[in-house]
Amino acid sequence: MNYRAEINVMPLKALLDPQGKAVANSMKNLGIPEIFDVRIGKHITLHLEADDEQSAKEKVESACSKLLANPIMEYYEYKLYSE
Amino acid sequence: MNYRAEINVMPLKALLDPQGKAVANSMKNLGIPEIFDVRIGKHITLHLEADDEQSAKEKVESACSKLLANPIMEYYEYKLYSE
Repeated sequence: MNYRAEINVMPLKALLDPQGKAVANSMKNLGIPEIFDVRIGKHITLHLEADDEQSAKEKVESACSKLLANPIMEYYEYKLYSE
Repeated sequence: MNYRAEINVMPLKALLDPQGKAVANSMKNLGIPEIFDVRIGKHITLHLEADDEQSAKEKVESACSKLLANPIMEYYEYKLYSE
């Protein structure tokens, strides 16, 4: 079966996010001072073939922990859709 | 009211995504050749204050089109949650 995974890799909540901080400051200059607490990470869409949902989850988690996310600085979350 | 927006900024589907392509190739070396068609963009979480949902949507769209997404190369989508 074919699956699609939608993965978010975000900076750990305990860490500062300088990129997000810069965007939050820029919002003031853009005339949208109501926006605050911005955090920026990666969004990854991928497709995969797997026998069942359990096997698909294992592959996605393996991809995240081996390559897509750096566990020192980032956490990941994902949703799996069968297609 | 306080809202939280979860925004994805992704490379346009018509464009190549070299970063995603590189990740898809790396998956083979990692022993997960079942993964294909990887696309990588940004995920942005932000909070904002607005009078109602309509006003919150306008602010988020303004932030996306003015700063977060480059419409020549990227599209954005978002979900809004009241908090």
